[in-house]
Amino acid sequence: MGKGRLIVISGPSGAGKGTICEELFKDENVVFSVSMTTRAPREGEVDGREYFFVTEKEFIENIENGGFLEHAQTFGNYYGTPKAAVLEQMELGRDVILDIDTKGARQVREIYPESVLIFVLPPSMEELKRRITGRGSEKEEDIKIRLGEAVHEMSLAVNYDYCIINDDLDEAVGAVKSIIAAEHHRYDEEMDAMIQRYKEEK
Amino acid sequence: MGKGRLIVISGPSGAGKGTICEELFKDENVVFSVSMTTRAPREGEVDGREYFFVTEKEFIENIENGGFLEHAQTFGNYYGTPKAAVLEQMELGRDVILDIDTKGARQVREIYPESVLIFVLPPSMEELKRRITGRGSEKEEDIKIRLGEAVHEMSLAVNYDYCIINDDLDEAVGAVKSIIAAEHHRYDEEMDAMIQRYKEEK
Repeated sequence: MGKGRLIVISGPSGAGKGTICEELFKDENVVFSVSMTTRAPREGEVDGREYFFVTEKEFIENIENGGFLEHAQTFGNYYGTPKAAVLEQMELGRDVILDIDTKGARQVREIYPESVLIFVLPPSMEELKRRITGRGSEKEEDIKIRLGEAVHEMSLAVNYDYCIINDDLDEAVGAVKSIIAAEHHRYDEEMDAMIQRYKEEK
Repeated sequence: MGKGRLIVISGPSGAGKGTICEELFKDENVVFSVSMTTRAPREGEVDGREYFFVTEKEFIENIENGGFLEHAQTFGNYYGTPKAAVLEQMELGRDVILDIDTKGARQVREIYPESVLIFVLPPSMEELKRRITGRGSEKEEDIKIRLGEAVHEMSLAVNYDYCIINDDLDEAVGAVKSIIAAEHHRYDEEMDAMIQRYKEEK
């Protein structure tokens, strides 16, 4: 089986990352990472399931100890991906998916260079507008801002290993699965050990 | 659809590359490249099908014109992969497979850096010996030489993008197909053009 891979999925709001990830998690060897946060738990949220809920002091200590693959502050709260939990899953042979933005992806790549970066694009501007607008009765101005943010995010796709245009959900999911399967065939320590054995047995 | 990819497959004699390639060619969008050679055609061989048969003068002119993705001299004859024919197939959206050795692969990577290098390994030393021996009534000494060559080739797998252990044919073919599918999702000029359009339409 071998070690699991760390897969980072980014894409603008409206690209359909969430739906793709849900499909991927149907495979029991593909898991998501539980983030750590300083925000208060909401009704029904369980510590260790939705998030690991910690104090700001604990969070900052974890930053100082190099305990995050990536972290960020949003609306006064900290959010981060704990490194140990992710690496542990990978040691068990599971692929870990991180659904994070371009800033987070850059941090992950720095800390764990073997991570696989996938960017999901909406199929067209019309579809992106439809998906952003369709989420609720948002104001014209808000939609314009979100569209601008989406296009800015997309301009950073060039830094990713792979790009998927989410036109058809099945195809997009199939593409991510192919990428994960391919990444399991990268030359790694296991291959190296195997070739060493060949040399010795010769 | 997009442009086809250039896939280089290497592996020691006995790894089972040939059988894998045969399976891949069942997909009409996956083609092999017809090599050019200075050796004389054998009974039943057709120019442009098995090989492009040329004179030594023509072959050397083609080398001088940078017309090869790779070429080598074996037992006094030249063999090479003509660049133009391969690029033409790729423009038509077809993936081109080159079944060549590690020396050829290195040349291809230099001339066409976007090429995808896959190394096929036999599942075990016993199986490699069995496959090498099984080919005919070869002498002990010849088998030893071929085994040594095979292990030397394998030690160069580290330079490849992907490695596949050919334990089960279906799995090995599936792995190559996943790799090709994944490689079609690399960020390329088409992605770039799409993102440019998003920026303009914003």
